Amino acid sequence: MFGARCLFLALRRCSSAPCPKHTQAARLRVREALEAQEVADDIKVQGWVRSVRSQKEVLFLHINDGSSLESLQVVADPTLENRDLAFGSAVEVQGKLVKSLHRMQNVELKAENIRVLGPCDTLVFPFKPRERPLLEYSRQFPHLRCRTNVLSSLLRVRSEATAAIHSFFKDHGYVHIHTPIITSNDCEGAGELFHVKTSNEAPEPGKDSHFFNVPAFLTVSGQLHLEVMAGAFTHVFTFGPTFRAENSQSRRHLAEFYMVEAEISFTESLQDIIQVIEDLFKTATSIVLSKCPQEVELFHKYVSPAQKVRTDAEEQIQNWGGDLQTEHEKYLVKHCGEVPVFVINYPYELKPFYMRDNEDGPQHTVAAVDLLVPGIGELCGGSLREERLDFLQSRLERLGLADTYQWYLDLRQFGSVPHGGFGLGFERYLQCILGVDNIKDVIPFPRFPHSCLL
Amino acid sequence: MFGARCLFLALRRCSSAPCPKHTQAARLRVREALEAQEVADDIKVQGWVRSVRSQKEVLFLHINDGSSLESLQVVADPTLENRDLAFGSAVEVQGKLVKSLHRMQNVELKAENIRVLGPCDTLVFPFKPRERPLLEYSRQFPHLRCRTNVLSSLLRVRSEATAAIHSFFKDHGYVHIHTPIITSNDCEGAGELFHVKTSNEAPEPGKDSHFFNVPAFLTVSGQLHLEVMAGAFTHVFTFGPTFRAENSQSRRHLAEFYMVEAEISFTESLQDIIQVIEDLFKTATSIVLSKCPQEVELFHKYVSPAQKVRTDAEEQIQNWGGDLQTEHEKYLVKHCGEVPVFVINYPYELKPFYMRDNEDGPQHTVAAVDLLVPGIGELCGGSLREERLDFLQSRLERLGLADTYQWYLDLRQFGSVPHGGFGLGFERYLQCILGVDNIKDVIPFPRFPHSCLL
Repeated sequence: MFGARCLFLALRRCSSAPCPKHTQAARLRVREALEAQEVADDIKVQGWVRSVRSQKEVLFLHINDGSSLESLQVVADPTLENRDLAFGSAVEVQGKLVKSLHRMQNVELKAENIRVLGPCDTLVFPFKPRERPLLEYSRQFPHLRCRTNVLSSLLRVRSEATAAIHSFFKDHGYVHIHTPIITSNDCEGAGELFHVKTSNEAPEPGKDSHFFNVPAFLTVSGQLHLEVMAGAFTHVFTFGPTFRAENSQSRRHLAEFYMVEAEISFTESLQDIIQVIEDLFKTATSIVLSKCPQEVELFHKYVSPAQKVRTDAEEQIQNWGGDLQTEHEKYLVKHCGEVPVFVINYPYELKPFYMRDNEDGPQHTVAAVDLLVPGIGELCGGSLREERLDFLQSRLERLGLADTYQWYLDLRQFGSVPHGGFGLGFERYLQCILGVDNIKDVIPFPRFPHSCLL
Repeated sequence: MFGARCLFLALRRCSSAPCPKHTQAARLRVREALEAQEVADDIKVQGWVRSVRSQKEVLFLHINDGSSLESLQVVADPTLENRDLAFGSAVEVQGKLVKSLHRMQNVELKAENIRVLGPCDTLVFPFKPRERPLLEYSRQFPHLRCRTNVLSSLLRVRSEATAAIHSFFKDHGYVHIHTPIITSNDCEGAGELFHVKTSNEAPEPGKDSHFFNVPAFLTVSGQLHLEVMAGAFTHVFTFGPTFRAENSQSRRHLAEFYMVEAEISFTESLQDIIQVIEDLFKTATSIVLSKCPQEVELFHKYVSPAQKVRTDAEEQIQNWGGDLQTEHEKYLVKHCGEVPVFVINYPYELKPFYMRDNEDGPQHTVAAVDLLVPGIGELCGGSLREERLDFLQSRLERLGLADTYQWYLDLRQFGSVPHGGFGLGFERYLQCILGVDNIKDVIPFPRFPHSCLL
């Protein structure tokens, strides 16, 4: 048996001595090579083969490493070819970066050495060179679909959009809060909630053998927890997973999806909330368009044309600049719109207890807002929250929830402030800007009824 | 009944007309006011009262809005006092920002108007002015403890550290991946896993009535899913919640905690992984120290002195600069150390199937690394992954897992590359740099056995 005695301790043991396995060639990522302004003598590029074209006098390869949609062209002597050099294989190419004579690329790599690190059995590999597989087909291979141009582009866009959203809030002085995933809060009705249990928990509901002592669920929203924080910080946000156990196979629903949620204290106007939603959408989208122009173009060219009704993201942003005309409003009501539109002030009785009563007589609405976008529907939902203790207390009492939400009432008893916030569905946002019809294609590992692959 | 007809549509309806509720005074956050280089005539500050001191000729208030640890001093005529102006109440103060004569602050706000937005019943409010409550005491009030200096400082540090970690990876060309929270993967042994079910799911284990058709669990690590992505991107990371259903009440364990995980392709050396861990730790910590000096000082002054054995964060970083001496290694083995130390190469039989076999004869180790830090223990764990199909296949077959992990074997069949990665426990990292003894005090809403408050 091995024991603790067998452990080997080392701190930066080989930091100065060069490792014999590594050559001295400078390693460049594909994106760096493509953007290189100067030729370079001895470089090394590592990635996966996207195409192999063998001619009598020359061997052409295209190498992709996920750093960009575009691949790097490699030009090699045919003697460097070997049978493992195939679509999908992993390679390391060492050589000279030279100006390309071809008008489609700036540089190319003149190979001096090609090493196949991992071969790929192309007969079994589910993707083929120079084919653009249907999204439905790729979805069957959640462990391999990131190797297609469409999914790798999606993941780069998703990563940039995530960073852009974090920056937006940071730049505006918001404190990022990790709201909890497991919660004892079941406000939205037990039917839609996932329950969290250990394997030891007794199935009988009466027996108190819960890990947490109380029934526990996966969160449907971080809002109430953000409201806690809105009692100490004027601007807070969260960006994390949320869950619905709804038995829906719709192209707009997932069992696990991401929400961006923000809460703003000392605001008495729904307009302030709308302004933040608008600024967030515009800023994040501008950043994505400037950082991932090729990826966005790929989607607009090959993926979204199937959905003719959708206007493209830039156009939506332009439309958004002006006020909505009455004709637009009519059109919206009739057809559910071709421009993004904010709908405000919903009937009191239809909305959750936390929304602020507008006290507007027989209409009786709450200060709520939804952002509807063409082709997607609801992208954002927000509201002013009921900060008045007496209003909230009587509403919770009528609903029989005053005891459960005593902690939430406490927030109104100790230094309550007018506040409001919103949640944005991140996958729907990606669907919207890229024109992707099915929400399962904008998340790395989609979870929905009857499916939890990997 | 209300229906769809009752909805009111508006897009930026009142964007040009000033809202009568709002005065024209420029709104400043406390941090902005404190950093102001110039005096200003008509400003407005909103926040919560941290102290009220009423003298014969003058009324002093301190206002905090969560934007900084420091509060803004307000100087007012005693006639502006009212009985709702108390510790914990929410106020809006309008007046002139002037140079302060007091040496402790640069500016102060000379109040012209004070409006109490939300009173606070100080007799019932669990926190008192000028008291530093014990962390154990504050923990009983998860909905109010963010209003204490220690917890609001922690949350600002946590937010800055989160942003610093995202920036570090973005600046180094990593693609951010949202690895799934719900997974059908149960590799780490069912005893430690939380199960995810709907309320409709039959308790009989034999009956196939699962929402996802298969048993589903909360993730214990995003590693295997990151490895999927490491087959298309050379650098990926994730930063999200992970879960353990362990019945541990330790000061170092939570049922829900955050992990930073990274995976790097085309690496054949554990040293590369160690270097990334070291760079990440140093970069994130430098940013936190420069962005939150007052917050870090508060912890080092009032929170961490209780734990004498812990060296402070800056000192750890300096120690890290040099190689570990033999004397240090001996000391580490004897006492489990006073400096952060990387321990490498663990016995093959003790480690999970995915770690790379070192093929080092009778010792038989895998290329694994743990980072141990004083007072905390394991902060990071990483390894090279077994990228060789035959090695992995025979190991999985011996464990009876080859069918379950066919998708993972596929990754080695199609363009496999040498790769490795690591995971860093984010809460332990915060404990380490701030010197916080109990992990429950570095997360907004701690979840552990018998406790899931809110």
